[in-house]
Amino acid sequence: MVSQLESAMESLIKVFHTYSSKEGDKYKLSKVELKSLLQGELSDFLAASKDPLVVEKIMSDLDENRDGEVDFQEFVVLVAALTVACNDFFVESMKN
Amino acid sequence: MVSQLESAMESLIKVFHTYSSKEGDKYKLSKVELKSLLQGELSDFLAASKDPLVVEKIMSDLDENRDGEVDFQEFVVLVAALTVACNDFFVESMKN
Repeated sequence: MVSQLESAMESLIKVFHTYSSKEGDKYKLSKVELKSLLQGELSDFLAASKDPLVVEKIMSDLDENRDGEVDFQEFVVLVAALTVACNDFFVESMKN
Repeated sequence: MVSQLESAMESLIKVFHTYSSKEGDKYKLSKVELKSLLQGELSDFLAASKDPLVVEKIMSDLDENRDGEVDFQEFVVLVAALTVACNDFFVESMKN
């Protein structure tokens, strides 16, 4: 049986490839694919930001090797950072 | 509606707190809790390793601030590394 943690890890891989396979390099997110992923999967985060350049900024932050695309490792860094932020918020609300 | 990515992030937080809340600091994993999490959630990974000291080694690797416990941020580093390794394996098998 697949555990909850394994299932979550599988979801991260599936979500990435659902979007990365749409155009160009099948294993990397172009800017268009990243925007589509953020809109489809993290629309609440995107809506919370009032910055019209948020996608460009995220792309620039994630694209460590400056090839104009986001690979899976770069994507996981974003998810990890967001999840840590969510957890901090959750822990603070539990403590109060 | 919660997206697949949001649901995966929520699972990471839930799994961590299921185990971290068992004893001592409710928001950190002791060595006993980490072992219990690895056995309950990543038993296939654990079984694949023949090293009897694997839990001690993972604890030592993750516990960056050397307080004998693993916090959520340290835990996410483990999950990220494992997920990247799984993805690399998946991509290689797709390419072949």
